[in-house]
Amino acid sequence: MLWTDLMMGLNRLRGLGPPATLWRLCLQCSPAVAMLDRVPSALGVPPLGLVALRLSRGIHGRGDQTNHAAGNRVPCRFPFSRVSKQDLAFFENLLPGRTIVDPDVLMTHNVDWMKSVRGSSELLLRPQTTEEVSKILKYCCERRLAVNPQGGNTGLVGGSVPVYDEIILSTSLMNQILSFDQVSGCVLENLSNYLEERDFIMPLDLGAKGSCQIGGNVATNAGGLRLLRYGSLRGTVLGLEVVLASGKILNFLTALRKDNTGYDLKQLFIGSEGTLGIITAVSILCPRRPRAVNVAFLGCSSYKKLLETFQCCRGMLGEILSAFEFLDSACMKLLEKHLKLINPIAENSFYIVIETAGSNADHDKEKLHNFLEAVMASFLVTDGTVATEDAKIKALWSIRERVTEALTHDGYTYKYDISLPLEKIYQLVEDMREYLGDKAKNVVGYGHVGDGNLHLNITSHSKDQALQEAIEPYVYEWTARYRGSISAEHGLGLKKRNYIHFSKHPEAVALMKDIKHMLDPHRILNPYKTLPDQG
Amino acid sequence: MLWTDLMMGLNRLRGLGPPATLWRLCLQCSPAVAMLDRVPSALGVPPLGLVALRLSRGIHGRGDQTNHAAGNRVPCRFPFSRVSKQDLAFFENLLPGRTIVDPDVLMTHNVDWMKSVRGSSELLLRPQTTEEVSKILKYCCERRLAVNPQGGNTGLVGGSVPVYDEIILSTSLMNQILSFDQVSGCVLENLSNYLEERDFIMPLDLGAKGSCQIGGNVATNAGGLRLLRYGSLRGTVLGLEVVLASGKILNFLTALRKDNTGYDLKQLFIGSEGTLGIITAVSILCPRRPRAVNVAFLGCSSYKKLLETFQCCRGMLGEILSAFEFLDSACMKLLEKHLKLINPIAENSFYIVIETAGSNADHDKEKLHNFLEAVMASFLVTDGTVATEDAKIKALWSIRERVTEALTHDGYTYKYDISLPLEKIYQLVEDMREYLGDKAKNVVGYGHVGDGNLHLNITSHSKDQALQEAIEPYVYEWTARYRGSISAEHGLGLKKRNYIHFSKHPEAVALMKDIKHMLDPHRILNPYKTLPDQG
Repeated sequence: MLWTDLMMGLNRLRGLGPPATLWRLCLQCSPAVAMLDRVPSALGVPPLGLVALRLSRGIHGRGDQTNHAAGNRVPCRFPFSRVSKQDLAFFENLLPGRTIVDPDVLMTHNVDWMKSVRGSSELLLRPQTTEEVSKILKYCCERRLAVNPQGGNTGLVGGSVPVYDEIILSTSLMNQILSFDQVSGCVLENLSNYLEERDFIMPLDLGAKGSCQIGGNVATNAGGLRLLRYGSLRGTVLGLEVVLASGKILNFLTALRKDNTGYDLKQLFIGSEGTLGIITAVSILCPRRPRAVNVAFLGCSSYKKLLETFQCCRGMLGEILSAFEFLDSACMKLLEKHLKLINPIAENSFYIVIETAGSNADHDKEKLHNFLEAVMASFLVTDGTVATEDAKIKALWSIRERVTEALTHDGYTYKYDISLPLEKIYQLVEDMREYLGDKAKNVVGYGHVGDGNLHLNITSHSKDQALQEAIEPYVYEWTARYRGSISAEHGLGLKKRNYIHFSKHPEAVALMKDIKHMLDPHRILNPYKTLPDQG
Repeated sequence: MLWTDLMMGLNRLRGLGPPATLWRLCLQCSPAVAMLDRVPSALGVPPLGLVALRLSRGIHGRGDQTNHAAGNRVPCRFPFSRVSKQDLAFFENLLPGRTIVDPDVLMTHNVDWMKSVRGSSELLLRPQTTEEVSKILKYCCERRLAVNPQGGNTGLVGGSVPVYDEIILSTSLMNQILSFDQVSGCVLENLSNYLEERDFIMPLDLGAKGSCQIGGNVATNAGGLRLLRYGSLRGTVLGLEVVLASGKILNFLTALRKDNTGYDLKQLFIGSEGTLGIITAVSILCPRRPRAVNVAFLGCSSYKKLLETFQCCRGMLGEILSAFEFLDSACMKLLEKHLKLINPIAENSFYIVIETAGSNADHDKEKLHNFLEAVMASFLVTDGTVATEDAKIKALWSIRERVTEALTHDGYTYKYDISLPLEKIYQLVEDMREYLGDKAKNVVGYGHVGDGNLHLNITSHSKDQALQEAIEPYVYEWTARYRGSISAEHGLGLKKRNYIHFSKHPEAVALMKDIKHMLDPHRILNPYKTLPDQG
């Protein structure tokens, strides 16, 4: 693994930047994991039907129907203050031109991209600097005004939009690179261009979506396609700058690989979904861009054979293996039906995407060739194709990456993001399919085999309360039985907060609440999220 | 990177095990970083002179001279209770035969292996199960008895021995493997044998020292020789079981690679040096044992050329690079003088140890050959030798690994463990050498170039207060000037707690204290360590 240090700053941008648009790429504190599945919204394209969506703005004092229909009762509004004229004047003075009350702009910030959660905020703030974030939070803390941090707003668990009238603090204007150290050196530039120029990549698969969501990805501990190779953000994030609910700025913005001077406080904020602080700058280790990349798209007749293929792959591709992903035949059918994608190989029960990334093209090709020969000879794999050129690599990846998009065309989608022991992953899909019978339109499975992470998706013709009640808590109970996690990478947000007990012991939840109370005693930061209502 | 899951349990051992011996390999909660430098104590061999050491046992109520002489004033004893006859009776009933008051046994547990810190505990407890640890702490918390968790007692910062009369809680009997999952499977066996049999290795370099120190390594977030390749324990530790000061057991013992259900609480305990809880079980990701390992030992005429060699190495060895270590000519001279080691190559200013680990021996040899050709042709490297066989690999590694041992023969050693930007690493050694002049006997530098981690060591004929005052705070100020860390991997312990401000902002230290207060309000766990006396 080859690394260098990249310090990304999310501040010091001069000028106001472009006007707020739908789903623009931005930086901070929203569960941005959806982007990792390359959903169109993350690419700047509004998700299907959203532009045309007309919402009546919410009413203070209660969640709207969209929330209630999510099958997870919205908690009562906490006794926060409401934004007054004096408050507005304060913010307008602090953020002239960036204190937004325009209902049309606010509408797009009040709804998540799944259209499953809707808040009723009437104020959007767009700070440009850490100091502005600090002043906002200090004021809000004193005034007991609730704050909803928002970045790309592409999360899947209702973590990135207000539940009631929380002030939306958007970090979309905090998107600057502070410095980049190879051996030394410090330049400010757009992150992805910068990385490309320097022959480095991000340790998580955000290259295609712009690196600027890194703040949100850190806040949600996003996983994605490269975790198998480069590990989680808990290992690759070297430093953070965080603003606490009180407005206090915590600077842990080191670029050192090793630092054992006391507790590693930044870890508290990684994956805390904006409930403990707002991340305003990130320092992250970036691997070198690999000289050779190959992608193989393979077909297997059973999940058992898929697992055997994975074992063989780990042994034979070793250190060059960078991704091992799968989708089932139900996913492929949706891709063919809704997106007109063409299956490049013979029809199979399971499809695998394997990526290698290495420093010597000849060596990598030889390793891949030997591996493919072995899995074909032993009939683990029945058909396959390999890409070494960029265009074909992208085409093969898009089969895996566009499953989420295909699902949105299939109807209302119930999304579950489950960690399980490898051998159990697909059993959940099969059990669910059998259990739901014709209650569901489609039950499909895909995800990151290499990380034990299944994306279980269930579609129906329209929103269906009975179906949801059939799925939940069945899916969580099933997961808990095998000591899995009910949220591998998506976080808990609003939607899954009350299911935390399926994956965490009560003592752990109690400690989480103690930490929340210590850092945000008035609960102004992203209220109603992550922490369960009871227990 | 190829991984599988290994869950190690530190409990459920039956029988009493061997009687307590000097520096036996054990499991838990002591800064075990010294072991990573392969000091003889970690291998079961008492360090020079220690067996013959006779200490008068300390006196309640004040630190002894050894502590004071460390140049870092020992804080006043906190108003803990003292162990009474009733307390002894309680412990003897709970841990029959494992409640030790024998002064000779206690003597060895009261002194660190550097012989630089000495406590005066009169009670050693050796629990075998998590439940016993819990009962001990619950009792101590109620009685306000201070507890010093101790594992291998091989730390370098006085973190693993009592300062006053703290009860020593040794985890040496908690050394069981709970389970090992490849795809599935669960077996109990000695960890290192187990890993070898299964063709896996530890993600940190504890193979040679026995895996049983893993609890202490997690408690201190140990680094070591493989961090460059496999990352820090913050990424590879999947789960922990921890007993809090109150006796409450926190079970985060998942074996999942991904789990985003709430805050990642285990991170609080990794690297907290036993001040927040006692780690009683660990689940850790283990990479596959590489099929091919090569070691190159090279000479460079300057640190600049060494750095250029590193850059070239990262590019050409890429994903197979597993270690890039260095020592200077002063280290080599000590190895030759004190250990009679023979320099295998021509005399040089700097020596590099490069290790490759990969899945295809031919490919790795070719990559290494190409790299060596490049660095020799460009005169970056002036001489070198390569090993592919186990015996020769071990011989080359021992040159790097035995520097610590050689230093102990050179006189009293002042040890510093510094993180710095790569290009600054050796400047600190040179500046220190010039600054100290003939005050010091030797000023040497070695360490983990790949991680930006320098081990700066200064020897003198005997303990020398004036020399220490010349070194400190100079070394810390120098480090802070370049935004380095004053403890890369050794932790703060007793000795460096008051220097934390050179690497952490006051707000961060305040938050550390809040966390300590939340988890251990009576400060019974490893008191006087890690947290500074003031601020």
